[in-house]
Amino acid sequence: MTPNIDTARLTHELETLAAFSDAPSPAVTRIVFSEQDMRARGWLKQLYAAAGLHVREDAVGNTFARWQGTDPELPAVGTGSHTDAIPHSGRYDGTVGVLGGLEAIRSLQQSGFVPRRSIELLMSTSEEPTRFGIGCLGSRLLSGTLTPSATAGFSDSEGRTLDEVRTSAGFHGSLDSIRLKPGYYSAFVELHIEQGPLLERRNVPLGIVTAIASPASLNVTIQGEGGHAGAVLMPDRHDAFLAAAEIALALEAAARSTGAIDSVATTGFCEVFPGAVNSVPSRVRLGMDIRDIDPDRRDGMLTSLEDACRDVSARRGVTARIDMINQDAPATCAPLVIDGLVAACEKHGLAFDRMVSRAYHDSSFVSRICPTSMLFIPCRAGYSHRPEEYSSPEAISQGTLILAETLANLAR
Amino acid sequence: MTPNIDTARLTHELETLAAFSDAPSPAVTRIVFSEQDMRARGWLKQLYAAAGLHVREDAVGNTFARWQGTDPELPAVGTGSHTDAIPHSGRYDGTVGVLGGLEAIRSLQQSGFVPRRSIELLMSTSEEPTRFGIGCLGSRLLSGTLTPSATAGFSDSEGRTLDEVRTSAGFHGSLDSIRLKPGYYSAFVELHIEQGPLLERRNVPLGIVTAIASPASLNVTIQGEGGHAGAVLMPDRHDAFLAAAEIALALEAAARSTGAIDSVATTGFCEVFPGAVNSVPSRVRLGMDIRDIDPDRRDGMLTSLEDACRDVSARRGVTARIDMINQDAPATCAPLVIDGLVAACEKHGLAFDRMVSRAYHDSSFVSRICPTSMLFIPCRAGYSHRPEEYSSPEAISQGTLILAETLANLAR
Repeated sequence: MTPNIDTARLTHELETLAAFSDAPSPAVTRIVFSEQDMRARGWLKQLYAAAGLHVREDAVGNTFARWQGTDPELPAVGTGSHTDAIPHSGRYDGTVGVLGGLEAIRSLQQSGFVPRRSIELLMSTSEEPTRFGIGCLGSRLLSGTLTPSATAGFSDSEGRTLDEVRTSAGFHGSLDSIRLKPGYYSAFVELHIEQGPLLERRNVPLGIVTAIASPASLNVTIQGEGGHAGAVLMPDRHDAFLAAAEIALALEAAARSTGAIDSVATTGFCEVFPGAVNSVPSRVRLGMDIRDIDPDRRDGMLTSLEDACRDVSARRGVTARIDMINQDAPATCAPLVIDGLVAACEKHGLAFDRMVSRAYHDSSFVSRICPTSMLFIPCRAGYSHRPEEYSSPEAISQGTLILAETLANLAR
Repeated sequence: MTPNIDTARLTHELETLAAFSDAPSPAVTRIVFSEQDMRARGWLKQLYAAAGLHVREDAVGNTFARWQGTDPELPAVGTGSHTDAIPHSGRYDGTVGVLGGLEAIRSLQQSGFVPRRSIELLMSTSEEPTRFGIGCLGSRLLSGTLTPSATAGFSDSEGRTLDEVRTSAGFHGSLDSIRLKPGYYSAFVELHIEQGPLLERRNVPLGIVTAIASPASLNVTIQGEGGHAGAVLMPDRHDAFLAAAEIALALEAAARSTGAIDSVATTGFCEVFPGAVNSVPSRVRLGMDIRDIDPDRRDGMLTSLEDACRDVSARRGVTARIDMINQDAPATCAPLVIDGLVAACEKHGLAFDRMVSRAYHDSSFVSRICPTSMLFIPCRAGYSHRPEEYSSPEAISQGTLILAETLANLAR
């Protein structure tokens, strides 16, 4: 059998999904459990039904669409990704893994392939940390990496708790029911855009992921002293924003000085309180993201950040508190899945690079419960998390073909 | 005659006004034309009516409450201030000049004083720049400092224009009708908390203002390049937030290096786009406020800021655009009003300092159309624009007494 990818249909579906957005095209904003997210979920379930897949949703909205195998008692082969999108981002991050996964299944169905193991498409909830501060919420829960009790304090910027938001979105039941049983999946493979420039630069169509970098996310809250911008003299100030500026620059310097190209650190948001032009900032909250393939180097950046917080606080008469949101271990990908991907590439004569993922993914957490790897396709200039994000129909089609072949390899 | 200030009533009225707030006590948030602002305006008009004052509102909501003199054709004596409050600020900034002005008029009425000139209490609209970006909106318009056509582009953070917002608040008519006729006021005097620590430190109950500092407000918009926080390598970044951090620190350095204690500069807000923890900031808007008593020194800080924008942009591969919102001249106070204040202080044996105002006020603009000065009272530790803002009932009462005497001096 050779699966035949319907590139036009897949391209059209990616466009349709992109229109479920709170930002004007080409930008995409699709926050978990927002109205647009719920509409996108409804539309996806129609596609799943049309493909004859059996759909299950868990208590946090992870959605499982299963093509039943001839031996349904065997652990299934999983694939999938996410469809939520951070504010003003692009249309390929995550969505290629969900709609590509669906197209891979449909192409196998049409090719006459009969899977022994069930093949299951996962759409995970809130891979992006936008709403509740933590990324990979759904896959952390289903892999048991995050315990349900630890989510008790999760709330969004309007103070609505995760439990409030998920139940009002229609996802009831205990979070304890989410964790997958041991042996649920025999293997998992996620198709994703690279989100980096390497495949494009090297003109290689596919990347097989051998490891996923270890991220840390944290908030730094700086408390200074406010006052009138005209009346508080410069020597009397304890300006929280200027302290925050120094701390953010210190984190950048730490990332640039590890000597490794894989060290990255970002201050992605900065909330200033009270936030009036004529008021000295009294409090600032920074959202920071620190990653490396080597967890020791990552933790070295964290130490540099702690040192900077201490030094800046002492010098400026402010306090700076670090709240760690997650500090995850790196994931190593499984030879079983890598071999399946390699065999598929070789069958079709497509070149591939073995590579590490600097971005983290649901696969980082799924890898804790079953053999896992990822398949990367090139994206223009490495752009991601911005409206210019783009992968060509050809690149998506090739990735989907290799995904289909790999699922077949693993489900036989 | 000697006016008798009803301190208990005035204190109670200040408390009542403070409760019209979108922030929990002791903090006050009262943004122009918000529901709380409109409720406060309604309550004030009841007080004006109870005092027998004739009320007029102009097309931008400046409110004039007039005690008619025996020679109503003569230019009036004006007093007043504002009642809007920036987010999470205090209860005395502006309000003391409005409710103190009302109490001064009532005390003169009760003392049997009969004014030859009318005495008029002004409550100006949007002294604070919170909603439309520009401070002293009402007094700029009534003094002709701001032309109505220049307000065409004014809109709030939700994109609602000044015209939309004022008319939906009930203030109709052309903005051209706002400007006061030449000779409308014979003199103007504004009672205000010092918003600085000097009177308290020196244990002097009153400050007579001889000049008001020249402020500049501006936005700096930095455009860089976004991307995925995991995937964009550090050497490839054009991070708008880190550029903004350097620019804000450069402005601080400029203010600290003029050699003058009166040089102050503040970055009061920082908007980061897209503002997600795992996204490299692509765009940042900073709100900056630069002040000095000496306009040349202030403009020197501006030049340093421009240099920093250029240097940082070149080094980081971003662009930084400065949009000047206002760059006002300093105001010199008038001997006529200063003499009236001095005479009142001497009559009551109250010490005073002559001082400059580092904060700017509606009086900065009223001074362009009539002889103007201000009367300062001490406030605790110089706190202002924060919930800890405080002036004692005694300080407020003394200020109100001297204001009443001065109004009488000027209205005879």
